Amino acid sequence: MTSTDSFKTPSPRSCLAVVLAAGEGTRMKSGKPKVLHQVAGRSMVGHVLATLSKAGATSVAAVIGPDREDVAKEVRKSFPEARIYIQKDRLGTAHAVLSARESLGHGADDVIIAFGDTPLVLAETFAKLRAPLAQGAGVVAMGFHAKDPTGYGRFITAGNELLAIREHKDASEAEREITLCNGGLMAIRGDLALTLLDRVGNDNTKGEYYLTDIVEIARTLGHQTAIVVVPEEEVHGVNDRAQLAAAERIIQGRLRREAMASGVTLVAPETVFFSHDTRLGQDVVVEPHVVFGPGVVVEEGAVVHSFSHLEGTRIASGAGVGPFARLRPGALIGPKAKVGNFVEIKNTELGAGAKVSHLTYLGDASIGAEANIGAGTITCNYDGFGKYRTEIGEGAFIGSNSSLVAPVTIGKGAFVGSGSVITDNIPDNALGLGRGRQSVKEGWALEFREKAKAARKT
Amino acid sequence: MTSTDSFKTPSPRSCLAVVLAAGEGTRMKSGKPKVLHQVAGRSMVGHVLATLSKAGATSVAAVIGPDREDVAKEVRKSFPEARIYIQKDRLGTAHAVLSARESLGHGADDVIIAFGDTPLVLAETFAKLRAPLAQGAGVVAMGFHAKDPTGYGRFITAGNELLAIREHKDASEAEREITLCNGGLMAIRGDLALTLLDRVGNDNTKGEYYLTDIVEIARTLGHQTAIVVVPEEEVHGVNDRAQLAAAERIIQGRLRREAMASGVTLVAPETVFFSHDTRLGQDVVVEPHVVFGPGVVVEEGAVVHSFSHLEGTRIASGAGVGPFARLRPGALIGPKAKVGNFVEIKNTELGAGAKVSHLTYLGDASIGAEANIGAGTITCNYDGFGKYRTEIGEGAFIGSNSSLVAPVTIGKGAFVGSGSVITDNIPDNALGLGRGRQSVKEGWALEFREKAKAARKT
Amino acid sequence: MTSTDSFKTPSPRSCLAVVLAAGEGTRMKSGKPKVLHQVAGRSMVGHVLATLSKAGATSVAAVIGPDREDVAKEVRKSFPEARIYIQKDRLGTAHAVLSARESLGHGADDVIIAFGDTPLVLAETFAKLRAPLAQGAGVVAMGFHAKDPTGYGRFITAGNELLAIREHKDASEAEREITLCNGGLMAIRGDLALTLLDRVGNDNTKGEYYLTDIVEIARTLGHQTAIVVVPEEEVHGVNDRAQLAAAERIIQGRLRREAMASGVTLVAPETVFFSHDTRLGQDVVVEPHVVFGPGVVVEEGAVVHSFSHLEGTRIASGAGVGPFARLRPGALIGPKAKVGNFVEIKNTELGAGAKVSHLTYLGDASIGAEANIGAGTITCNYDGFGKYRTEIGEGAFIGSNSSLVAPVTIGKGAFVGSGSVITDNIPDNALGLGRGRQSVKEGWALEFREKAKAARKT
Repeated sequence: MTSTDSFKTPSPRSCLAVVLAAGEGTRMKSGKPKVLHQVAGRSMVGHVLATLSKAGATSVAAVIGPDREDVAKEVRKSFPEARIYIQKDRLGTAHAVLSARESLGHGADDVIIAFGDTPLVLAETFAKLRAPLAQGAGVVAMGFHAKDPTGYGRFITAGNELLAIREHKDASEAEREITLCNGGLMAIRGDLALTLLDRVGNDNTKGEYYLTDIVEIARTLGHQTAIVVVPEEEVHGVNDRAQLAAAERIIQGRLRREAMASGVTLVAPETVFFSHDTRLGQDVVVEPHVVFGPGVVVEEGAVVHSFSHLEGTRIASGAGVGPFARLRPGALIGPKAKVGNFVEIKNTELGAGAKVSHLTYLGDASIGAEANIGAGTITCNYDGFGKYRTEIGEGAFIGSNSSLVAPVTIGKGAFVGSGSVITDNIPDNALGLGRGRQSVKEGWALEFREKAKAARKT
Repeated sequence: MTSTDSFKTPSPRSCLAVVLAAGEGTRMKSGKPKVLHQVAGRSMVGHVLATLSKAGATSVAAVIGPDREDVAKEVRKSFPEARIYIQKDRLGTAHAVLSARESLGHGADDVIIAFGDTPLVLAETFAKLRAPLAQGAGVVAMGFHAKDPTGYGRFITAGNELLAIREHKDASEAEREITLCNGGLMAIRGDLALTLLDRVGNDNTKGEYYLTDIVEIARTLGHQTAIVVVPEEEVHGVNDRAQLAAAERIIQGRLRREAMASGVTLVAPETVFFSHDTRLGQDVVVEPHVVFGPGVVVEEGAVVHSFSHLEGTRIASGAGVGPFARLRPGALIGPKAKVGNFVEIKNTELGAGAKVSHLTYLGDASIGAEANIGAGTITCNYDGFGKYRTEIGEGAFIGSNSSLVAPVTIGKGAFVGSGSVITDNIPDNALGLGRGRQSVKEGWALEFREKAKAARKT
Repeated sequence: MTSTDSFKTPSPRSCLAVVLAAGEGTRMKSGKPKVLHQVAGRSMVGHVLATLSKAGATSVAAVIGPDREDVAKEVRKSFPEARIYIQKDRLGTAHAVLSARESLGHGADDVIIAFGDTPLVLAETFAKLRAPLAQGAGVVAMGFHAKDPTGYGRFITAGNELLAIREHKDASEAEREITLCNGGLMAIRGDLALTLLDRVGNDNTKGEYYLTDIVEIARTLGHQTAIVVVPEEEVHGVNDRAQLAAAERIIQGRLRREAMASGVTLVAPETVFFSHDTRLGQDVVVEPHVVFGPGVVVEEGAVVHSFSHLEGTRIASGAGVGPFARLRPGALIGPKAKVGNFVEIKNTELGAGAKVSHLTYLGDASIGAEANIGAGTITCNYDGFGKYRTEIGEGAFIGSNSSLVAPVTIGKGAFVGSGSVITDNIPDNALGLGRGRQSVKEGWALEFREKAKAARKT
């Protein structure tokens, strides 16, 4: 269901992706580096790397800030073979790219320059960006039509040929009328990359080495250039928390539209939040106010009722969960099983047709098909040191408000009396009871009330 | 609170509504027929039939697809006397309407043609559509001003007279400038209906019989025509899940505006989801994030706190529920009663001023006025076969974490000790206890921790 | 985090704020006076008074309707020294202001006229409104550029000088083209206030005394006037529930933007609802669907997971709460403590690193650092008359589904066995148990099922 699933045919050419991920993100006001902030349950740099991988990147060079082992780790999580380069000085984008000089020298057919804080580019867009390189172009730049172009570099074009990228402050009156702006991302023919980048100078007001200069350099050296135009939202960059929220909104919009297009009912799409990897089958219904963490699969025809929170969970066909269900990693909900309100399930397999309707915690358990777990049942799976398993057989009936002290096995078809504490195994078809015997004290409440009232008066 | 409540005075003329409900809805990508998909807790065709009924339809002919007993059943649920016709071949809208030839021959004064996938038309709009028939018009068509008319049939008019409906592909350049478009719905004078419909031919590119042709046919035969113009959203049709979500959004917008207009506070209207039949009294407050299933009545001055999910429930004046309340069918919450967080109530009457504040399941129970149900109380109403009732008297006090094993009666003013399992009745004003006696093993935890740590090391 | 926090330097001049709060609010359809309806968890008049206080108001005169002790009480809650005046007749805004004649005669340097149903004006705007008075202006009026000026009074200006405020119905064609409209609020030089107000006549169609007339009166007497222009949303007035919801939306938008600007991640800002006084530290993460009641402080780096409802709570640095957490007044969550799903905490201090993960109610308790509270634990803090405390020591382990009957103390490092009812104190490092012994009846379930089935048949 992710945005780029439809893209399937990367080019056979080798491709180095240089990912600039050294930005400090001061405006984020965060102790965490900018590219590790998340959208749709994954870090921004994780999105960029996943998309580059789909687009056929065969090697990755990530340029990160000094002492950022956390960023390096996240990069390697997505792309274990990535080369990591440290950008020590901040002398401009071309300088940043050249931090990866070693990788650039390895002779990839194509080079893509991507940004760790621009997570919404689609894989097919990266592919379009590379395509002209195979036709001989030296540099391809990604542009967009800006609603308000103020501040952006402008594309000076002749047809599909890009003559130059003009910074806003250097642009003439006429050039400022141009709304086709620089999205930042570029593709460069691998055999030209170092040649072009090494020619970039810093003879400008800020004394920086601008990546955009390679367009004119390429043309001076007689190479063709090209542009790829994308919607503005695709090159949305994140510099503060409001832009982070905007990126989240854009990606959620994509995920919701894709879900609906594939035959899922979202009663109120704007109240449902997906992870980048959520997978929903046809005729799944998702009611208002549902949150999907990473790793959720919901099969055909299952229903996710309102106020449910799912993560690392598989819900089989025809099952129903919620309202108010909390499914945590390792919850496997069987076909036609029902999970009701105020129920938490973790690392537990629920068999076909089993029912856990109310106020229950199941952890580290296995529940047989058609078993019925009464309201208030709790698997006591932790003793402060270890975690232990609870096994409940097919067709078993667990009376309400029972405590199942793991490790413990309840046999097939067995019963547990309401309010029991079960510490020992129960054989198949047996009844287990573990509760106090009831006693009654007649008139006690009258006396108690009298005393309580009297105590108040004093 | 439903959108058409305000409409009260149907015409005295008899009226046959022909509802076209045979569409397969391929773009829905669903195993369920399109018209059974729901908005605001009711199927689309259910909405159409309910509205037609309010607008004074005296008979209904539903045209459905072959082998669609599910659709027939849904139609009869709303309109038990409806005649069902099967559309075998898909030869155009006029052909579909003629599937109901038998009903058309019964001589209703008015005939309305409505669509099962166009659920947002108001009853008063249907009434406006019929009105010109009483003045002698032969055909009345419903139009709207399209934001983007591309693809829609255009109304060719002279004043309020409709000359023809021109399909987009047949329209001239000038005609394509027209933004008044065909909404599809029509009213036909009953004595002309078959005459007009039988004259429709299929001499066009697609070889289909178009209902829209009856406009020109009526004029050729010397009959007047008329138009009724409605907002575009009222004729919003549903062909895919995104359009279904849009229909839901439109109807929720109506329901929210109507609630606020009647003196209800919706703190965040866009986060509250109503059913078509939700009824809310004056000065009811609904906090953010609340979902109303069908059949809910909330009386004056009651408060529904955030994260509540209500269905088939009546909440009396001055009561408060939630946050995190789940009220299921048959929950009757008495005046000034309080239902707190993580509480589920089903088929249970809660007396005036009673309190159920936390983590409780009440099913098949009756709770007396001013009773106090402690945290974690569970009515054990099911033994795997039958459901049994729990009766709790006025002013009773149920200690926390108690299990009440039904059938069981707790007398008026009685007390249940915390953590008890109650299997036998408790007389009025008595104390019931059913729990183990406490024992203490000094130093046990120290030893346990030593052993657990030692075990870890090995 | 409130909208006007940034404003810090009120003028040294004395300032009387006259707050008109007598409106009946008929269109609210409410038993409650209009100005007591809330936005962002505080009454509208409360917002106005708080903002005036920040803007340097040194005295307040509130004009309220007859028999409105509830409004008087709310005014005094915000501004204990406020003078309350009753408006008996409704003869126009100037007449209403003159109800406070006594206060106007006390000789404040500045007079501000504010409205109890216009809660979104910022403190800095009030300051701007006062500023020209210090420069000698007699009257300053607040205007806004209306998207649709129909119905509003128009500002007739010459530069920054306000010549007159023309009512819509009295405006010429040319004047109706003006989009700069009257926002209602005014500042008047204190020594002129009564002079100007007493000269207002009622020689107009409605026979009312219009406050707006003082502009022309001031100019006639040779005094300067001035205008302050604000965004339309700042002078948004509330006359019905839809406008109340709009005011809530505007103020929530402000609070969300301010949170994000200060370094808070709001994954889905539009689903998070703040109170006017919510305070969030840097790098706090708030997931979708969270509601903040009044009095919440969340310290740096804490995480509030989805579907949480917080009120009167402090969450320390590094702690995590939810999803599905309900924190009520007096919940103090220690550093790195964890509160999980379906957990309610009230008037309870949770020590550093303590864990309360599931289905628990803690009320009137104190939980030591690193203690672990098992699923389903309930503090039985109420016996129908008094509330009692539960003390749990550092590092204690409370087994699942336990009932702790207060007053009770669980020692440091002590254990409670799962499913226990604890009525007596447990020493440090001891084990407490209070539950029935388990028994098993072999084959019982087989017999039960046979009987149950047989019973069904009969």
